[in-house]
Amino acid sequence: MPDSPVFEDLDPRPSLLMGPGPVNVHPRVLRAMSMPMLGQFDPQFTQYMDETMALVRRIFRTENQWSFLINGTARAGIEAALSSLITPGDTVLVPIFGRFGHLLTEIAGRCGGTVVALETDWGTVFPPQVIGAAVEEHKPQLVAMVHGDTSTTMAQPLDEIGPICRAHDALLFVDTTATIGGMPFEVDAWQIDIASAGLQKCLSGPPGSAPITFNARVVDRLKHRKHVEAGIQPPGFEPGDGPRIQSNYFDLPMLMDYWSEARLNHHTESTSMLYAARESLRVVLEQGLETVWARHRHVSQGLRAGLEAMGLSLYGDPQYRMDNVTGVYIPESVAGDDVRTAMLEDFGIEIGTSFGPLHGKIWRIGTMGYVCRRQSVLSCLAALDVTLRRYGYDAPPGAGVTAAIEVLG
Amino acid sequence: MPDSPVFEDLDPRPSLLMGPGPVNVHPRVLRAMSMPMLGQFDPQFTQYMDETMALVRRIFRTENQWSFLINGTARAGIEAALSSLITPGDTVLVPIFGRFGHLLTEIAGRCGGTVVALETDWGTVFPPQVIGAAVEEHKPQLVAMVHGDTSTTMAQPLDEIGPICRAHDALLFVDTTATIGGMPFEVDAWQIDIASAGLQKCLSGPPGSAPITFNARVVDRLKHRKHVEAGIQPPGFEPGDGPRIQSNYFDLPMLMDYWSEARLNHHTESTSMLYAARESLRVVLEQGLETVWARHRHVSQGLRAGLEAMGLSLYGDPQYRMDNVTGVYIPESVAGDDVRTAMLEDFGIEIGTSFGPLHGKIWRIGTMGYVCRRQSVLSCLAALDVTLRRYGYDAPPGAGVTAAIEVLG
Repeated sequence: MPDSPVFEDLDPRPSLLMGPGPVNVHPRVLRAMSMPMLGQFDPQFTQYMDETMALVRRIFRTENQWSFLINGTARAGIEAALSSLITPGDTVLVPIFGRFGHLLTEIAGRCGGTVVALETDWGTVFPPQVIGAAVEEHKPQLVAMVHGDTSTTMAQPLDEIGPICRAHDALLFVDTTATIGGMPFEVDAWQIDIASAGLQKCLSGPPGSAPITFNARVVDRLKHRKHVEAGIQPPGFEPGDGPRIQSNYFDLPMLMDYWSEARLNHHTESTSMLYAARESLRVVLEQGLETVWARHRHVSQGLRAGLEAMGLSLYGDPQYRMDNVTGVYIPESVAGDDVRTAMLEDFGIEIGTSFGPLHGKIWRIGTMGYVCRRQSVLSCLAALDVTLRRYGYDAPPGAGVTAAIEVLG
Repeated sequence: MPDSPVFEDLDPRPSLLMGPGPVNVHPRVLRAMSMPMLGQFDPQFTQYMDETMALVRRIFRTENQWSFLINGTARAGIEAALSSLITPGDTVLVPIFGRFGHLLTEIAGRCGGTVVALETDWGTVFPPQVIGAAVEEHKPQLVAMVHGDTSTTMAQPLDEIGPICRAHDALLFVDTTATIGGMPFEVDAWQIDIASAGLQKCLSGPPGSAPITFNARVVDRLKHRKHVEAGIQPPGFEPGDGPRIQSNYFDLPMLMDYWSEARLNHHTESTSMLYAARESLRVVLEQGLETVWARHRHVSQGLRAGLEAMGLSLYGDPQYRMDNVTGVYIPESVAGDDVRTAMLEDFGIEIGTSFGPLHGKIWRIGTMGYVCRRQSVLSCLAALDVTLRRYGYDAPPGAGVTAAIEVLG
């Protein structure tokens, strides 16, 4: 006899996701996830794995052999990097300019790192020389930072940080979850040693898969911690001379064996998410990264012109704003969460709230990936125009949409 | 200008996956993954999370409030359990009867546990009194074991283990990845404190999401290690008095806050995989667990009758065979991998190789989830009949299929 009823059929209502991510997934990516399984060592599947590695390289703008996926959300990618690299007692310098910098200190501390946190005001970023001075002073083994922190909508320029780290023999880890595919990010040109990301923002994929890449300097450190699970060790295997990595799931040297010709069994690769990652990357690379970056910048400019024409003020240092998410002050006369709820309930448009010191002060409006288009901006501005009026803030009627059209054509 | 070409469209060939998993995903689950995104705190999405928790409870046969998903493959579920529970220096008893027992020692050791490994011959399991004596001798804080180890196709009876652990104040963790939905597994009735699984076997879902459940005894230990990330701590929060959990991603107390009314942000829930998990569980529960368990047992009996009628010998102690995967000796006259390759290339049928001491000695043929049906067994036996003949082993022609039909009708 069947068990009792098991809820309704899945039927997500249509939404336009203009928060800081996750955003709407590209229809080609949704279709990819509905494709049938292959065995994990089927030659066709391992070919898809290899192709995905090639695509990951291109999205990160790197020649790094080791460019693959961590089977988890964006923070799984961060933890894989930090837990594999940090040996207990290592000094880890974390420049913090928003919530996700705090997350890095959190993870680095749990990996046994001695964390040196460098803070700056929210809404700004670090001048490179400030980071340089800290590297010189603390001589960290690792510098860990985010590229774009959606909590403040700021992006840290990174091109000078890599050379600073290299000059002081520190490795540089960067979390590029919020910027990858949304603004320039150059692993090799900027001398970034290891970077991780997620699919769910400008790559128009679902959350749950974390692209990662790392170079030979990282491999050189990792080789001391190489280990193979009991039960599948090849004959004659000699473990590394360093301490074992504290996580099995996030053990990068074992993942390298899985993603190489050795194909040494580790986890069972998340088939559907690999399909999703491969297709997300294809969609972006077919358009061309430069084209995609330019679109994000242009569409954001349209949104920002519209918001300002409505008399709203933008948040943060204009010079360092991310190209794919915009912070905007909530007018004093309105309750921010009421407006957000009405936008979602009445129009199916989600805009973002904010964390910590900015909670209740700004909304965050994303224009990421599949959502990054004129139509989204105009729909959002029109809905915001009428909703704000209902909640007690009168913008000049239609001014937002008109100003955005002036920019976006 | 677009970048260079980005590989062919995804086009996985049709396969019948009769290895030890992953297996073919149910079409309803594939469809679920192609559904559009919702925002992670959209009330409709949090309702889907709550419903998924209710379904996870039912699949584990438990009243445990804390029943949810870890965003990673099955081994992510294991690591979440072990890394959250094991405090460095804890004694962890691991009865090993196959490769996945070794994996548990591996993970437990990395979490700082002092591992006491108990081994038995492959192809057998432990009498409960052997485990009881070891618990008495070593007084572990935690006993960790697998229910069904696909590497040997054996399942450990567990109903007496929970009471033994409870009598000695040890917690019991069980990895049920390979058995959940394929044979009886009773969290509450068997007094299992914490269990984790995967979707990719008898639940007919994709790999990449790990259902987990744990009871109040576990929560009681975890509360000493409760911690909230810098940047999102509620006012007045007091951390637990125990050592911080070494992983952020796998921190169960933080995951509890995310999966409860508090909805405290942790990772961004993997939307499509949650859809997949919810649908996988619905499909199984609509049929009824007892019905599904009986089908796995019956279909396996058909397969086994067929293999024996072909003159092949089954592996392992018949009393403790799993109901969803069958080990069968490779005839001495044939090269096991050639037959497997031909089965896949000629018929699209994947059967499993094996690990460690069994490598080259047995194949493992799965009848799991969506694949667990008469048609799969007959197709596999017919293909094996002709393939074995081509590779030098003559079974009585058609005997396998005929014998299976006698059992399966």
